[in-house]
Amino acid sequence: MERNDVIIIGTGPAGLSAAITLKMRRKNILLLGPGSLSHKIEKAQKIDNYPGLPGISGEGMQKKFLEHIKSMDIEITEDKVNAVYSMGEYFAVQGHKSSYEAATVILAAGMYVDKPFDGELENLGRGVSYCATCDAALYNGKSAIVIAYSRDDESEAEFLAQRADKVYYIPMYGETAISGGNIDVISGRQPGRIERRDDGICLIDGEWEITADGIFILREQVAPSQLVPGLEVSEGHVNVDRQAGTNIKGLFACGDITGAPYQYIKAAGEGNVAALSAVRYLAQRMCSVKEAN
Amino acid sequence: MERNDVIIIGTGPAGLSAAITLKMRRKNILLLGPGSLSHKIEKAQKIDNYPGLPGISGEGMQKKFLEHIKSMDIEITEDKVNAVYSMGEYFAVQGHKSSYEAATVILAAGMYVDKPFDGELENLGRGVSYCATCDAALYNGKSAIVIAYSRDDESEAEFLAQRADKVYYIPMYGETAISGGNIDVISGRQPGRIERRDDGICLIDGEWEITADGIFILREQVAPSQLVPGLEVSEGHVNVDRQAGTNIKGLFACGDITGAPYQYIKAAGEGNVAALSAVRYLAQRMCSVKEAN
Repeated sequence: MERNDVIIIGTGPAGLSAAITLKMRRKNILLLGPGSLSHKIEKAQKIDNYPGLPGISGEGMQKKFLEHIKSMDIEITEDKVNAVYSMGEYFAVQGHKSSYEAATVILAAGMYVDKPFDGELENLGRGVSYCATCDAALYNGKSAIVIAYSRDDESEAEFLAQRADKVYYIPMYGETAISGGNIDVISGRQPGRIERRDDGICLIDGEWEITADGIFILREQVAPSQLVPGLEVSEGHVNVDRQAGTNIKGLFACGDITGAPYQYIKAAGEGNVAALSAVRYLAQRMCSVKEAN
Repeated sequence: MERNDVIIIGTGPAGLSAAITLKMRRKNILLLGPGSLSHKIEKAQKIDNYPGLPGISGEGMQKKFLEHIKSMDIEITEDKVNAVYSMGEYFAVQGHKSSYEAATVILAAGMYVDKPFDGELENLGRGVSYCATCDAALYNGKSAIVIAYSRDDESEAEFLAQRADKVYYIPMYGETAISGGNIDVISGRQPGRIERRDDGICLIDGEWEITADGIFILREQVAPSQLVPGLEVSEGHVNVDRQAGTNIKGLFACGDITGAPYQYIKAAGEGNVAALSAVRYLAQRMCSVKEAN
């Protein structure tokens, strides 16, 4: 597997800013996230306080950002990240589509807003999972519930359905095009609770319930504490120092994931700081490798 | 004297970003610094890592920034700041041209690079001063040396010469237009040391020396530790927390003055954070005033 210098997780202002600065420093980067950039940017009506771009629309800013990274030959690898593991000398990043490796990782995945379901965290790894493609092989001849938050999740459910006997698909985002075969679409439910039972794992909405061998919750992002085992967080935000460093050596964080204020210019500034800290970390690492040889 | 909500010291990316965010929050601001913005911006050849403005020149960025603040009716008050005093309920800011007051202050004066002369700090207030216009009245019938770092200092020396008997003007920036009357221009000297003598204060360059009643050192900016009595600094940089707070309540700092990396986007991001912290401070202050009444 190709080992990158830096994997950047997130394509909002923080992640793009980090990518731009790292590219200028000639680092080998992998930028993971939605190719259409942050949905939040797109939805913003008007941004007045990004110095140099007065009164720009969210769509306009998205266009400017895309032009900027295109002019520097920065590509976005469209994948969602399920887990980041520190392997001592490097990081292993598990995406829904593939796995990746890098010497250092920058977390720029944005604000995490979703509340876990009752029973979700207790049953994580015991019937509850965040990546259907990762675990699909385990579901030969079995049944699974998929709680999906975006149209992009449909292909993941279809992939799972090629292995599993039965897939119950619950779209939390409105209308879905998915249908037929062994996929049952369940609409109009607001599941609130997950329970482990003798016959499987059960999703409950008041009087209504459904049981299967597993439940996949495909949120836009995984909570920081779940994403990176051992990462120190406070009230859902990653703890960072003034140089974007976390408690894990070689792992940096920037943007909304580090806390308020949730502002484009703050996020972009922090992305730059995280990138330069990663550059410094890579240089020190190279020195210590040389010394050891 | 009109009391502002916020005085922002500095017109680089950090100060302008703070001004823009504060203006959007309808705060009454006073923005102090050179009207041509930061000299450093102007001199930059090409800036590649300010997301949204790829490959922009320093001059181009300066233009964008000026357009942005103009579109928001933000004005720059051209003055250099000599000292900032915390008065408990408010701050008093001493400029070269005037004095100002505000409930809170944002320091965005940029990186401080100059090294003090030998003997400068020991004799501060004892013959050495940073503001000629402030102290001019004390120089009736006396002599003074002015060490000037910018053409803008010429008017200050001329003002001083209306009171003092004799002014020795040492331009550190090259050619000067100042001449005649009781002003002696001294060129070709690189003063290195200041000494207190019985007959006055003495400026020394090797074998050459000159003595007067006082010495004015008109740098582009005053070192942070001298600018704000009691301010905690480390290696010349203001110590700040993640919300741009300093050890002095109501005083915030952002941009290069808080340390590396010295980057436009980092400075602009921090300006936004400082502004929102000032907004929060003002709101809390108003609540406690209401409670007290």
